Amino acid sequence: MSSFLNGRLPRRATIYEVGPRDGLQNESRTIPTADKIAFIDALSETGLQAIEITSFVNPKWIPQLADASEVSRGIRRRPGLLYSALVPNRKGLDAALAAGMTEIAVFLSASETHNRKNVNKSISETLAAFEEVIEPARAEGCRVRAYVSTVYGCPYEGDVDPRKAVELTLTLRQMGVYQVSLGDTIGVANPVQVERVLDLVLAQVPPEQVALHFHDTRGAALANCLVGLSMGVTTIDSATGGLGGCPYAPGASGNLATEDIVAALHSMGIETGIDLDRLVAASQQIAAFVGHELPSKYLKAHIGARTRADTRADKGRAQQA
Amino acid sequence: MSSFLNGRLPRRATIYEVGPRDGLQNESRTIPTADKIAFIDALSETGLQAIEITSFVNPKWIPQLADASEVSRGIRRRPGLLYSALVPNRKGLDAALAAGMTEIAVFLSASETHNRKNVNKSISETLAAFEEVIEPARAEGCRVRAYVSTVYGCPYEGDVDPRKAVELTLTLRQMGVYQVSLGDTIGVANPVQVERVLDLVLAQVPPEQVALHFHDTRGAALANCLVGLSMGVTTIDSATGGLGGCPYAPGASGNLATEDIVAALHSMGIETGIDLDRLVAASQQIAAFVGHELPSKYLKAHIGARTRADTRADKGRAQQA
Repeated sequence: MSSFLNGRLPRRATIYEVGPRDGLQNESRTIPTADKIAFIDALSETGLQAIEITSFVNPKWIPQLADASEVSRGIRRRPGLLYSALVPNRKGLDAALAAGMTEIAVFLSASETHNRKNVNKSISETLAAFEEVIEPARAEGCRVRAYVSTVYGCPYEGDVDPRKAVELTLTLRQMGVYQVSLGDTIGVANPVQVERVLDLVLAQVPPEQVALHFHDTRGAALANCLVGLSMGVTTIDSATGGLGGCPYAPGASGNLATEDIVAALHSMGIETGIDLDRLVAASQQIAAFVGHELPSKYLKAHIGARTRADTRADKGRAQQA
Repeated sequence: MSSFLNGRLPRRATIYEVGPRDGLQNESRTIPTADKIAFIDALSETGLQAIEITSFVNPKWIPQLADASEVSRGIRRRPGLLYSALVPNRKGLDAALAAGMTEIAVFLSASETHNRKNVNKSISETLAAFEEVIEPARAEGCRVRAYVSTVYGCPYEGDVDPRKAVELTLTLRQMGVYQVSLGDTIGVANPVQVERVLDLVLAQVPPEQVALHFHDTRGAALANCLVGLSMGVTTIDSATGGLGGCPYAPGASGNLATEDIVAALHSMGIETGIDLDRLVAASQQIAAFVGHELPSKYLKAHIGARTRADTRADKGRAQQA
């Protein structure tokens, strides 16, 4: 029997790195601005095509990213690489534009309760508020992306109707958003569900207008990406090292690790343009900054294999001495 | 775009639990016999259909499993549940039969170098030696399974010709083995490669004579299982908690965690007969015995969510007080 993959995988995929924003905003330790800039600059040298560097939100909400303007001004921008930042409202947009951002992202949830807990508005109020962000941003030549959270499940409501993702994707596209990232915020998506949601969404919009955003809380993120890739979606959000954790389960994995998805893509012959060794170096750098081990499995295997080689080399030297 | 997973996935899958053997043989700490028996007895109450409990190998090779006979005699055997043990030679078979085993497993590698490092014989010498194990076992009414290691990559030789898996599967079937488990010993398999190998193997043998055995070293085990399931293979080897580690990269994940695959299967509507809560309880029991955290992502998310609920409950009490 032939598998479902046969001939369906793309030759190239785009990684949208969200570690500096989606990762660091969940760290209990606030990273010094210079360390964030060093991390983003290291990421810029890996071959990544898109990096979300920060969030222009009220520092009262997310003090970890209070230095958004300084980070945006401080990084070394590599030509051709797309730098983006999260923006919740007109004030955030103005700050982002003033700091030189040329791409922003807006965000909302597919479930009412999560949306209200997150931004203190209903979904329709949130969409209405986007009007004072999206159009003004585009008028300034700034591209706008959108995140839809809790597409595959809500920590408060449980199951989420897949038609919600379709409806929001269409609305956001009509408002001028170029790509909608469908987020599995709590890491409960499974491959069959991903197929069901994408079947509905891709009946309405072309695959390049959609991005995959999975959390690896239950270890299913790569399997979920495989389904999305085989359906023609080629943009995948991920965070270096698996930075971020899961806010609903301390110690559990959050974002899919960039190393894990890049290693998997390369092993299947799918190009990303990313140098995996440089990515691992950037990952080890930010692991030192945040002060704890990162959940990426590829990273752990890489460190473990190197430790073993070092031990061997040490033994070799000892025997020669 | 049309659905592709839908209709290809089975309604039911069988988990072949290998934690007590493949997991514990890689632990640096030797677990007391009574603790092993308690662990296996707990696993027997989860709804698992098959458990590999130990290995009748020379204790000089694997001192962790020197108590194979005591374990086999000490466990509470649940009717209908299949208990198996690894057997390397006639001496091991005799000990296994004497201890009441009714299923054994033989093992070899798909790459010459790994096979020689592992059992100090060539592949053809190993197959020849199986003759004094497989036929005598079957004559005693004992079923025989086989593991083929390094099917997807060898730590010494690198790439392994997929035709090797086909050739060995056919030979082992002809020798009387009822099922061949195709092992990704170092966790380097990717979904495209799994499709390629299984395409060749399943052209020669029916899917029920093959089992999937992936290590989660790079986090791709669930994605690899999804490909195998979609091709009709319904037996999956895994280890509770992800016990076992990777001998080639200290700290990295070894066997696919039983919790992770069972949670994924159930979420896709595929039955296993396993009670996930009982499995998690058995996992936490063995984690205490081995004295370190286990890599299962589902387990970590479960513990994290419970910790959070406990913290909330404590806060609630504090506010009420």
